[in-house]
Amino acid sequence: MFNVDFEPVGRRGACTSDQSLLDCARQLSVDLVSLCGGIGNCQHCKVQVISGRVTKPTLEEEASLSKSELEQGYRLACQTYALSDVKLHVPPESLTALQRTQVEGLEVDVPPEPPVRGVEAHLSAPTLDTPISDDVNLWASIGLPAGTIDFQVQQELSRKLRDLNWNVNVALRGTEIVAIGAPGTQWLGLAVDIGTTKIAGYLLDMETGKTLASKGLMNPQISYGEDVISRIVASSKSVENAAKLQALLTEALSQLAADLCAEIHSEPTNIVEAVVVGNTAIHHLFLRLPVKPLGMAPYIPTVRSSVDLKAREIGLKIAAGAYIHLLPNIAGYVGADHVAMLLATRIAEAEKTTLAIDIGTNTEICLNHGGHMTSVSCASGPAFEGAHIKFGMRAAPGAIEHVRFSPDRLEIQTIGGEAPVGICGSGLLDVVAQLRLHHVLDRNGRMGTHSLVRSNNGATEFVLVEREGQDPITISQKDVRELQLAKAAIRLGIQALVIAEGLTEQDIDEVIIAGAFGTFIDVQSAITIGMLPSLPLERFKQVGNAAGTGARLALISLSQRAKAQQIAEKDGYIELAAVPNFNRKFAEATYL
Amino acid sequence: MFNVDFEPVGRRGACTSDQSLLDCARQLSVDLVSLCGGIGNCQHCKVQVISGRVTKPTLEEEASLSKSELEQGYRLACQTYALSDVKLHVPPESLTALQRTQVEGLEVDVPPEPPVRGVEAHLSAPTLDTPISDDVNLWASIGLPAGTIDFQVQQELSRKLRDLNWNVNVALRGTEIVAIGAPGTQWLGLAVDIGTTKIAGYLLDMETGKTLASKGLMNPQISYGEDVISRIVASSKSVENAAKLQALLTEALSQLAADLCAEIHSEPTNIVEAVVVGNTAIHHLFLRLPVKPLGMAPYIPTVRSSVDLKAREIGLKIAAGAYIHLLPNIAGYVGADHVAMLLATRIAEAEKTTLAIDIGTNTEICLNHGGHMTSVSCASGPAFEGAHIKFGMRAAPGAIEHVRFSPDRLEIQTIGGEAPVGICGSGLLDVVAQLRLHHVLDRNGRMGTHSLVRSNNGATEFVLVEREGQDPITISQKDVRELQLAKAAIRLGIQALVIAEGLTEQDIDEVIIAGAFGTFIDVQSAITIGMLPSLPLERFKQVGNAAGTGARLALISLSQRAKAQQIAEKDGYIELAAVPNFNRKFAEATYL
Repeated sequence: MFNVDFEPVGRRGACTSDQSLLDCARQLSVDLVSLCGGIGNCQHCKVQVISGRVTKPTLEEEASLSKSELEQGYRLACQTYALSDVKLHVPPESLTALQRTQVEGLEVDVPPEPPVRGVEAHLSAPTLDTPISDDVNLWASIGLPAGTIDFQVQQELSRKLRDLNWNVNVALRGTEIVAIGAPGTQWLGLAVDIGTTKIAGYLLDMETGKTLASKGLMNPQISYGEDVISRIVASSKSVENAAKLQALLTEALSQLAADLCAEIHSEPTNIVEAVVVGNTAIHHLFLRLPVKPLGMAPYIPTVRSSVDLKAREIGLKIAAGAYIHLLPNIAGYVGADHVAMLLATRIAEAEKTTLAIDIGTNTEICLNHGGHMTSVSCASGPAFEGAHIKFGMRAAPGAIEHVRFSPDRLEIQTIGGEAPVGICGSGLLDVVAQLRLHHVLDRNGRMGTHSLVRSNNGATEFVLVEREGQDPITISQKDVRELQLAKAAIRLGIQALVIAEGLTEQDIDEVIIAGAFGTFIDVQSAITIGMLPSLPLERFKQVGNAAGTGARLALISLSQRAKAQQIAEKDGYIELAAVPNFNRKFAEATYL
Repeated sequence: MFNVDFEPVGRRGACTSDQSLLDCARQLSVDLVSLCGGIGNCQHCKVQVISGRVTKPTLEEEASLSKSELEQGYRLACQTYALSDVKLHVPPESLTALQRTQVEGLEVDVPPEPPVRGVEAHLSAPTLDTPISDDVNLWASIGLPAGTIDFQVQQELSRKLRDLNWNVNVALRGTEIVAIGAPGTQWLGLAVDIGTTKIAGYLLDMETGKTLASKGLMNPQISYGEDVISRIVASSKSVENAAKLQALLTEALSQLAADLCAEIHSEPTNIVEAVVVGNTAIHHLFLRLPVKPLGMAPYIPTVRSSVDLKAREIGLKIAAGAYIHLLPNIAGYVGADHVAMLLATRIAEAEKTTLAIDIGTNTEICLNHGGHMTSVSCASGPAFEGAHIKFGMRAAPGAIEHVRFSPDRLEIQTIGGEAPVGICGSGLLDVVAQLRLHHVLDRNGRMGTHSLVRSNNGATEFVLVEREGQDPITISQKDVRELQLAKAAIRLGIQALVIAEGLTEQDIDEVIIAGAFGTFIDVQSAITIGMLPSLPLERFKQVGNAAGTGARLALISLSQRAKAQQIAEKDGYIELAAVPNFNRKFAEATYL
């Protein structure tokens, strides 16, 4: 019996030596993806051995994993057996969507240079002989020249000093006191990545920079429209709508702050700083800045610079004096989340020609070639979220997330291993790639003949899953067209960046795929359908929610904030609609 | 016929050469005080000739006015006739209370160094080729490195830029944009002196520093108690009370701002900065800082330093991004209004030994001797406001404000010349002084025999005015005692300061009497009753609302703010209750 520890999922338990790591995972309810059923050829159950001894790589592993991966301890869980207690890192792409929350991402690995620091203060009680005022008393006890005290902190100052018997811990932001607590208070920071569809929140220790808790939730603005354009329209329609769209976010974030604090038995009033990132429209809706100019050419943001504002100004319930810092935007459709992603992936420091791509309803792409950074934004649409797809759905239990044609059968992996109820974005990508590989689709995306292709009320469709007493789950010709449009927008964005630098796609040394969705996709499928350029697989790196990581970096380090500012200023911007021969190029990019 | 111009009252009109200036004043409804009925011996109708020719001083004037006064153009209006068009300055103490609003004070005569300045900005409209964000566009057009834009200004930025066709005027406070208006907007400042009883408000042009309008009103907190102690008690009792006490002030100030702006056909949204002064308790109630510690020894203020906060934080309705600046406090009972008074009177720069005194329900006194400044606060009580006095009333129409025993009769001046209904503070001071001078009161304040002294239900009282069908207006023995307590507190404060410097009262070279009430009093009467030390009259200077002037100075000049900070830091403080042998000394100070 060995102890097996799956991180960062945080599941630990005893397993016998005749159980593969995949068996262990199943026993401990760690939902590893496994398309092939454990025969070692689907490559989805990849894990990284951090410590402990395991069996040697099998021939299947040597065929599927690169040399560099093997050197780093990457293994296929279905092929590997523990030989001692082991600790495993499970990369987010190996988890089924239920456990791959949108919070997974790169590690935060910079030394903290926190914008807010805690200082212990021991005051002397005033007397008639030394009737020193509370503010002067406080600054003297800290031993700093008097700065400012947040107005609402002032309002609580005299009571807190007396309740805490003149011993306090002061949260200092530059020269401003933003909170006062008991001695030894652990001051917290909140980092939030607000996506169009999902929100990822992180609670950090402001002193150590460590992530203490994280949580994902849906963006409640979805009730006003699935894409940002519908929300821009809604918000521009009335003041009430604009207020409601903001309130939905601030209420969700206040709840998020409370939930995260509850996890570590703390209080939101100990959160003394927040960093929020999102695309430009979300950023503007969150601050209740007018979004109408974002919805029409030339797509002008009100604010490009970073913003610092008191959390209470927009009703976010954290410490009374806490600030929210919003990273800068770059353009109307290249926002603070893109800046955060660039910060986390360190693309600005890359010496190799590097492409970073955050795939979503709106896809932002950045190319760094020789220190010259340029970004582009593509309206890839909501097909990846399951919208406008006949059986489309979001990544939820029962969604088909991976599909493979084996010679004799259709292999299907659903989220949570449940009976299939629909298909999510990564599944759609796989299906179209497999249909193309098996010539069910031609280069134009036209569906040919096949035993599983049928005509349904004049519409051609491919039957994925027959279900008793229910319509089968199918992929229609129209669904394929939707995906073609989405992937064409992304490919065209990549091409525009490459061409602007006088390069070809083959010159790209590294492709960083960020964002929750990008983490779920099968890169080979994305290459097969022509969404991503055909480069050796080892050039691709799936990094999870990099925007969330960027937000965390900016939360705990002032020099990371400065870097973000430099990135936003340095990053050039191409307006895709202004690319010459856009329509012809777009048509070409739809080819599979 | 000559044109006579009374300033700063602002009344102008034609008068004939056989009308005295007093007659002219009456004709133009300028309510000069005249106790003697125009025979030149009450000295109350003093005016200053600014320009134009008038008749030579009479013997009466040479007897009443000092040589220095005559040299400065001071004359008795009843003795003087115009010989050409003339322009007169009416000192506030020469006006009856109706026209002596609490806004009169020293002139604002420093070069403006405004904290907020207007900058014209001409932006280029963005295009698809230069899709520049509104904030970056704005800063570029100003030609300054990007600073911050107030959050609520950001929210209006994009609409305003487009509505104003990309031409705007920006109100810049340091590196922060606090308002945006049409080109050529006149940005305004609001200075407010909040007294325990009355509020004085001033509207200034932020660029020129000129006072454009002023207005006095009652402090609506009076419904929670006439003195600050009752308001401290009320505010400490419940959160609702504290909120209400603050709301009463902010609503009154918002209305004041609106009224002042209406006078000059402007809008409160053009007020981009406010300075507020008040005593420490009022300061704390205004900011909703806890006042309980102010109400008990050792009387600790929460905040001593100056405070800058967004006006919207406390609901003051001026420009969205405007700040309120509150001058620093000195101690629990020596507040920002005292600092403002010291600033306006320039006592810190005085080379002579100078005493500055602001008489009110609470009286603050400061002595500067050889550059060493010390202040004291005395609880003089509400007798001067008419409280606890049988026929006491505030300075309002019908209040007896001045009284003189002539050999054969009692001369009485009421406010507005109306039938007497009661007696206000300055009247009370005069009565007691006159009764003492005519030996109706002895040194201890005991009322002796006199044809007008009577016993009423066992209480001894002096009949001031017989009224048909009504009780006569009287001054009772108890009223005299109340005044003795009030004046003793003040005199003791003066003595404490003088003794602390190793001086005697005779060493005081100049006494500056500030505040609306101090301006109304007859200095000779105050000396007679022993409230003020017996010094030559020319050493006294009545300056009106100096706190309001100090607020205006701080409003339009950053270096005046710095000076106020220095004053607050430099000014020492004596706790009167801690003076040795306080009780014995207090008893002695009650002697008339």
